[in-house]
Amino acid sequence: MTMKPIQIGLIGLGVVGSGTFNVLKRNQEEIRRRAGRGIEIAMVAVRNLERAEEVVGGLCKVVTDPGMVVDHPDIDIVVELIGGCDTAKDLVLRAIANGKHVVTANKAVLAECGAEIFAEATARGRMVYFEGSVAGGIPILRSLREGLASDRIEAVAGIVNGTSNYILDAMTRSGASFAEALRAAQDAGYAEADPTLDVGGGDAAHKLALLALVAFGARVDPHAIPTEGITGVSALDIRAAGELGYLIKSLALAHDTPEGPCLRVHPTLVPRAHVLAGVAGAYNAVQVESRALGRSLYYGRGAGMMPTAVAVVSDLLEVARDLLAGVTPAAPPAVRTVAPASTDALEHEHYLCVHVPNLPGVLGRVATCLGRHGVSIARMIQDRAGAGPVPMIILTEVVAERAMQAALTELSTSPDLAAPPTRIRLLPAALS
Amino acid sequence: MTMKPIQIGLIGLGVVGSGTFNVLKRNQEEIRRRAGRGIEIAMVAVRNLERAEEVVGGLCKVVTDPGMVVDHPDIDIVVELIGGCDTAKDLVLRAIANGKHVVTANKAVLAECGAEIFAEATARGRMVYFEGSVAGGIPILRSLREGLASDRIEAVAGIVNGTSNYILDAMTRSGASFAEALRAAQDAGYAEADPTLDVGGGDAAHKLALLALVAFGARVDPHAIPTEGITGVSALDIRAAGELGYLIKSLALAHDTPEGPCLRVHPTLVPRAHVLAGVAGAYNAVQVESRALGRSLYYGRGAGMMPTAVAVVSDLLEVARDLLAGVTPAAPPAVRTVAPASTDALEHEHYLCVHVPNLPGVLGRVATCLGRHGVSIARMIQDRAGAGPVPMIILTEVVAERAMQAALTELSTSPDLAAPPTRIRLLPAALS
Repeated sequence: MTMKPIQIGLIGLGVVGSGTFNVLKRNQEEIRRRAGRGIEIAMVAVRNLERAEEVVGGLCKVVTDPGMVVDHPDIDIVVELIGGCDTAKDLVLRAIANGKHVVTANKAVLAECGAEIFAEATARGRMVYFEGSVAGGIPILRSLREGLASDRIEAVAGIVNGTSNYILDAMTRSGASFAEALRAAQDAGYAEADPTLDVGGGDAAHKLALLALVAFGARVDPHAIPTEGITGVSALDIRAAGELGYLIKSLALAHDTPEGPCLRVHPTLVPRAHVLAGVAGAYNAVQVESRALGRSLYYGRGAGMMPTAVAVVSDLLEVARDLLAGVTPAAPPAVRTVAPASTDALEHEHYLCVHVPNLPGVLGRVATCLGRHGVSIARMIQDRAGAGPVPMIILTEVVAERAMQAALTELSTSPDLAAPPTRIRLLPAALS
Repeated sequence: MTMKPIQIGLIGLGVVGSGTFNVLKRNQEEIRRRAGRGIEIAMVAVRNLERAEEVVGGLCKVVTDPGMVVDHPDIDIVVELIGGCDTAKDLVLRAIANGKHVVTANKAVLAECGAEIFAEATARGRMVYFEGSVAGGIPILRSLREGLASDRIEAVAGIVNGTSNYILDAMTRSGASFAEALRAAQDAGYAEADPTLDVGGGDAAHKLALLALVAFGARVDPHAIPTEGITGVSALDIRAAGELGYLIKSLALAHDTPEGPCLRVHPTLVPRAHVLAGVAGAYNAVQVESRALGRSLYYGRGAGMMPTAVAVVSDLLEVARDLLAGVTPAAPPAVRTVAPASTDALEHEHYLCVHVPNLPGVLGRVATCLGRHGVSIARMIQDRAGAGPVPMIILTEVVAERAMQAALTELSTSPDLAAPPTRIRLLPAALS
């Protein structure tokens, strides 16, 4: 007996949409074997009908009203690939209300409006899968879900913003400043004209919220995640970190606590021999610490047409298999919305860079100020060249976030400092 | 309606068996949700009944005759965890003949007797899953299978023998000789009393045959895989490679060719900044090159009680879901048995170390010999200390395997050389 193919409605035929269309078309037979039944695109909603025909080639109905897709009675799964929040949210909610399952690669709509979407999906018993929204080419959400069946995820640390990693990597290789490396990344197509969401850490915070959702079953407002971008990382910081045996990476970090998941995004000094240090260019990687498996890591392309399309299709296969198996939807794992746990008690070693005049007594005053807040100095490098303020690089012993913050606040008011100190955390020991 | 739980028969209650028993027991509820029905251990076959009771605690029937498990009419899936070839092969074949699906973590039986086992499974429409047999804590076989649905795997490069990686890593960190590092690994429990299978590359060849089976659908005799262990890697090689910017890793390499998969296991110089260089200690990692995803990499513990148990349980979930979905068995992907493609035309840069007397003309004769076979020298380091033969380190340009072999053969007969030259291949450009 051949089962009726699963009917897909595709909203959006941009880069990822076209890729998804082509992956589904080219791999029909293998997909049918894996899914247990065929997966067919019944309808595509696009803005530009003419351009769409180049991709679709008459193989399915093309409309300009996405409402026709989410309302169509024969469509089983709606694939939302238009991005953005408002329209996407309305369409996804309407699709779920109409009994459709949803696959999306839209991290923004899930991170910003996930509470409503997952509540609706849970109420209607519908699946929402979003592998393509986090580190497209890496099956990280699936791996976390699989892991949950027989393991307990304790912590996650990810390089999840390819633009930031590309820029930091370029700065490391060339010695360029942030501004120079950003411009080169823009020229090479690795950074947007307005790069704020990437280099400011907002994109990573979105993805971290989704990682925490799957890993810990807790939904967190991404705007509540302490987020520090890479705009403050200087060529000097990169060079000094290198001399000390570290690379600077922008990490999204999460671990579970009894008070809820503790989440943060910030530049981090990673030991050069650590596996995360080998994640170069625009690649992404997510390190997972779990009780039974111990440490694991997943590495691949974070974005791009084909990696994201493959992720979308893998979600379609997952939904198809779950439907046939009659499995309780594995996502959303929970709609429990929580405030992220405080980061005040987190402990790190720190890299500090202060610019101070090369005069007797200054070093003593800086060290005394740090000491007053319980911050011990482990190593120090002072570059003695130059007549004006010279950079003093300090590696601290492990110290709690709250104490470090107090020390930095006091240091910032010191007349010795030509500029506020730079502080970059080291990778916590539990992840090293 | 609650479906009858799937009944498991477990053969072997050693380290991995006990871990599997406990993972299944502790995560019953989540496993039921993921699998769509419960998974129950109906019967366990062991050698020692008393020790077994400590683990089983009366929760299921314990027998000493594994035949009772494979013949039991109520058992759906047989989990074979006794290892070794002959008995395991008989039990697996009998289980399949009796209509059972099989999950095993036994790489030897699949690599050595896979032709028979997979033919029988295909003939009977039964599934054989073996995630735990390759890099236990890494869901690599599942990732390759998933990838195949919408992508094409082109090449695989893995650190799949934890013992070899542990020893090479220790040599790199401490400057120790192979013999010293092996002894330390044995003392630390990372190497067996007879380490031949690990340090000789045989274990990696077994795993490579299974990786090729899943990635390319081709079964290869593991004894036909060109295999070079790490016993010839010296402290000098490690140090010289380090000075040139490389780490030495034992890699299992495969890529698809029209003549079948090309497979080999050998020590390899990996650039220090490459992600594989960050795979330290007893960890495993597998890098995958595929058409749509591009490069991806999976990293984790290669062995151990809990990682392997989690892999076995993930296979059980996969079988359970496939059973419910009525999906055509995804494994074995093929029983096409092929001879591995020749490695003669493979091209690498090479590291060479020759011990030659520090006399005029020697360097010229070595270079001339290499040149005669089309081997160009890219870099050279000669350590001038010492009165007797001194080591000369050469990095070559890219050269075909066949030409390099001819050059090495001629060099070995040269009266200039105090010992046969050491040759270590560099990571091919396509994987760098």
